[in-house]
Amino acid sequence: MRSSQYLLSTLKETPSDAEIVSHQLMLRAGMIRKVASGLYTWTPTGLRVLKKVERVVREEMERINALEILMPMVQPADLWQESGRWEDYGPELLRIKDRHERDFLLGPTHEEIISELVRKEVSSYKQLPLTLFQIQTKFRDEIRPRFGVMRAREFMMKDAYSFHLTDESLQQAYDEMYDAYCRIFQRLGLDFRPVIADTGSIGGHASHEFHVLAGSGEDAIAFSDGSDYAANVEMAEAIAPKKERSQPSQDKQVHDVTGHEVSAFLQPLAVDAQQAVQCTLVKASDEVEADAVMLVWRADHELNTIKAEKLTQIAAPIEVLDSDKLMGCHGSFIGPVNASMPVIVDRSAAVLADFACGANKQGQWLTGVNWDRDAEISAVEDIRNVVAGDPSPCGQGTLQIARGIEVGHIFQLGKKYSNAMKVGVLSETGKHETLTMGCYGIGVSRVVAAAIEQFHDDRGINWPNELAPFEVAIVPMNMHKSARVQKVANELYQQLRDAGFDVLFDDRKERPGVMFTDMELIGVPHQIVIGERNLDEEMVEYQSRSDRDKQKMPINSVLEFLNQTLRNA
Amino acid sequence: MRSSQYLLSTLKETPSDAEIVSHQLMLRAGMIRKVASGLYTWTPTGLRVLKKVERVVREEMERINALEILMPMVQPADLWQESGRWEDYGPELLRIKDRHERDFLLGPTHEEIISELVRKEVSSYKQLPLTLFQIQTKFRDEIRPRFGVMRAREFMMKDAYSFHLTDESLQQAYDEMYDAYCRIFQRLGLDFRPVIADTGSIGGHASHEFHVLAGSGEDAIAFSDGSDYAANVEMAEAIAPKKERSQPSQDKQVHDVTGHEVSAFLQPLAVDAQQAVQCTLVKASDEVEADAVMLVWRADHELNTIKAEKLTQIAAPIEVLDSDKLMGCHGSFIGPVNASMPVIVDRSAAVLADFACGANKQGQWLTGVNWDRDAEISAVEDIRNVVAGDPSPCGQGTLQIARGIEVGHIFQLGKKYSNAMKVGVLSETGKHETLTMGCYGIGVSRVVAAAIEQFHDDRGINWPNELAPFEVAIVPMNMHKSARVQKVANELYQQLRDAGFDVLFDDRKERPGVMFTDMELIGVPHQIVIGERNLDEEMVEYQSRSDRDKQKMPINSVLEFLNQTLRNA
Repeated sequence: MRSSQYLLSTLKETPSDAEIVSHQLMLRAGMIRKVASGLYTWTPTGLRVLKKVERVVREEMERINALEILMPMVQPADLWQESGRWEDYGPELLRIKDRHERDFLLGPTHEEIISELVRKEVSSYKQLPLTLFQIQTKFRDEIRPRFGVMRAREFMMKDAYSFHLTDESLQQAYDEMYDAYCRIFQRLGLDFRPVIADTGSIGGHASHEFHVLAGSGEDAIAFSDGSDYAANVEMAEAIAPKKERSQPSQDKQVHDVTGHEVSAFLQPLAVDAQQAVQCTLVKASDEVEADAVMLVWRADHELNTIKAEKLTQIAAPIEVLDSDKLMGCHGSFIGPVNASMPVIVDRSAAVLADFACGANKQGQWLTGVNWDRDAEISAVEDIRNVVAGDPSPCGQGTLQIARGIEVGHIFQLGKKYSNAMKVGVLSETGKHETLTMGCYGIGVSRVVAAAIEQFHDDRGINWPNELAPFEVAIVPMNMHKSARVQKVANELYQQLRDAGFDVLFDDRKERPGVMFTDMELIGVPHQIVIGERNLDEEMVEYQSRSDRDKQKMPINSVLEFLNQTLRNA
Repeated sequence: MRSSQYLLSTLKETPSDAEIVSHQLMLRAGMIRKVASGLYTWTPTGLRVLKKVERVVREEMERINALEILMPMVQPADLWQESGRWEDYGPELLRIKDRHERDFLLGPTHEEIISELVRKEVSSYKQLPLTLFQIQTKFRDEIRPRFGVMRAREFMMKDAYSFHLTDESLQQAYDEMYDAYCRIFQRLGLDFRPVIADTGSIGGHASHEFHVLAGSGEDAIAFSDGSDYAANVEMAEAIAPKKERSQPSQDKQVHDVTGHEVSAFLQPLAVDAQQAVQCTLVKASDEVEADAVMLVWRADHELNTIKAEKLTQIAAPIEVLDSDKLMGCHGSFIGPVNASMPVIVDRSAAVLADFACGANKQGQWLTGVNWDRDAEISAVEDIRNVVAGDPSPCGQGTLQIARGIEVGHIFQLGKKYSNAMKVGVLSETGKHETLTMGCYGIGVSRVVAAAIEQFHDDRGINWPNELAPFEVAIVPMNMHKSARVQKVANELYQQLRDAGFDVLFDDRKERPGVMFTDMELIGVPHQIVIGERNLDEEMVEYQSRSDRDKQKMPINSVLEFLNQTLRNA
């Protein structure tokens, strides 16, 4: 592509309404333009990147024998009424009426349409297992669209759905999809983690999110430095400390404290947060002969309410009770000594000896407290968030915490939709069997933004080769004054195009500085600079975008060099 | 692709709700499935064909340096209010409200969005000319969607838009697009005609429609057998006959006739329809000193009201007047003799001598009428539809009439949108210039249906190679009983796939008849049949879908044969 025939549209200034780096750089590099809140046009540079993501996703889906289809974006309400989601789905579901006043919606996802297709087209166990996918425009009417294409209303998604007779078959497809997702993000050159995810209200089945690691990520991820283990911080298990609890060596003592924050008590008591516990009272479940349960965790940790809520002793959804009413003191003064309700203690807190805690009296704390001797433990559970340095629950390595952007999600749906919509086949024995389902999404347009969050510097975007809008830029110096520069640039352009490279030939009448700035902003990974001086020696200059490596090389070795660098050939 | 891992979904019966062949065959071949009125899912077989159309369209757009972008399907109302189309567009425009009660619409076309993009991104004449395109989902809320994807509500379209400083630049882009469209439909193997189209209410600029010829087509097209000339029948000029009018040889005679239809009068009078004229009275324009104008044309021709309406003497829109009131007789009895209003005579009628016409008296006709001697001509004009056998208006060849399905439309829009939306640049002299625009559409999903209308027989679809969902089918006979058949089939499948062919390997446990029926229904152009008997001689049987040519060939020459047949290699 010649710049003079292209729509570069780069911006010098950072647009004021763009909050995150990827949004700023996508606007500055001329990749997207806003049409309305959460609605964007993908300009040529942006679409080139989007198509590259799409191609890799499609190839890896086909490799695992997923069949591509295309479902309509506008969907009829009746199928969603059948699944129950017409009522259940919030206002992100844009409900519309056609000219005959019939109810439709703009599809945020396609479980209903695919279930309708499969219940009509698949009637025999012989046709199973079956995985179908599409790469298609979705719509979610976000209340506050922001961050550019990271949280847009209209966006591009790859959604796949698999259908099975047995859980084993579903697990196998799920594992294949997991591997395909890993290959996709690897091929795109991204630093990512598959992360064990919460299965939420559907429950009971496996789910993984795929996160691109980036400091600006919305989610905190715990991952092992000694294995592939990774999970959302909320999901990661904090395993029991190996060391056993020490014997008591201190006597219990009462102290007057000031303030209302635990952190404010500890310093005057000369107690480290790791030697103190915090407590809270939550509503008990029907299984417990008490109204409240006390939760106890180490003061340097955070309570994880998602974990706590799953305990049978605790009512779901979790409800924090007013300690003033129940115990006559503020929550920061309650403690396990002489507690009148079951005490559930986090694993790390349960191995403490001689620790500090609230005295169940306003303005008083205790030190030298010991379990068994001074306070009873009803149960030891994992109820805290993991922290960096915790041993990995997989048994190998230590946990690190990183921030991630969710770009993929795989999920064993089970029979939620196939029960509601009666998706079944005749089994080998002639019996009607309801199918079990998996669903698998990749936010294709989101991947583009996530990659930029991961790969940028103060000069612009620093694309991995596989994602770059152009692989090579030819940057001729003052071409319009030098017939020789012009000739070499044109010949090299032709040669590299013929060899199948995505080349941007910057043939604009611009100063070299303007060209370099643009090529670095849009992030062309490899640049060939052609100037009079080097041509005297039949040389050009190669520049790498990522490490700014510069080297002179003979004109006639450029092709071989790029073949080696970009094609391993 | 192995059939056993594929979703074939063929139907034996013709679905009762499908009116036209392409709709029936797309359902029977398992290419589409209806989701709701005018909304379809493209199943794997259908999507494979759709993607092939898409690929050829994209390649030819890129060849003429059109840049691909992707605009949102959901569009904000404000831009359409600016262009005036928010009010003007009928109920096919689906207007919707988002969760904040703001007005949006589902895009049937993207002139407003592209104009908004270009007025912001293009500021200098140096960036022009510019052609942008997208391949994207559109929505038109048809009152009665039918014929499957031929007239669906959600459909796939390639829409391109070009921007220019001058009419010459627009004409050049238009010509390049015209050539690109010809290459696209040629490459897809379609019998098509570019057809001069009416520019309608926008007026004044060039427009061509591209029609795929098929007996079921909605439009009648006149085309020359001696040149590339083609036009909608309504648009084609009926050129003046070369022969001059003969001298009168008969006397004018009055006859009593019965009935009210011209055809009923002629036989008793022993007059050929080519020797008679029909007349009608229409409202005159302000340019004429009369209320009515009489239109006269040969009785074997049809009046063309679109042509007549364009005449300065006639009021637009055309209004037929009541001859009973004006002349005291039914319309089939009026004639040019002693007419009290201007008489506009079609070119073919103007060269008649000794012709028959109404006598301006109920129940009476005249024969032996001659122009000048018996009746005056105010003007000779082209006011009839062309018929097969007319000389082509291009001067070469004779016109044929065929029916066509519109699959593409190119249009010189001029400044309609750029005036309304202020799309301009600074010219070389620093002056602000409003741009002139072209728009160019291809109904990508419609092409698939149109191709089937052109290529089918009683066994199913007869795809051209470039459009077929699979190029080659491997059909093994009773593979599950013969290890030898199985081995050869598997090896051939691997060999053809490695060579880059789209192969469907029918490895189902089905009877040969079922396999043949399916392969012919979905229209795989080339079949390799593998059976025990031929294997004794190391042979397989090749079958061509289009001409049913069957030939035995050695197993090891199949690849070479297919390379020759499909790749000219």
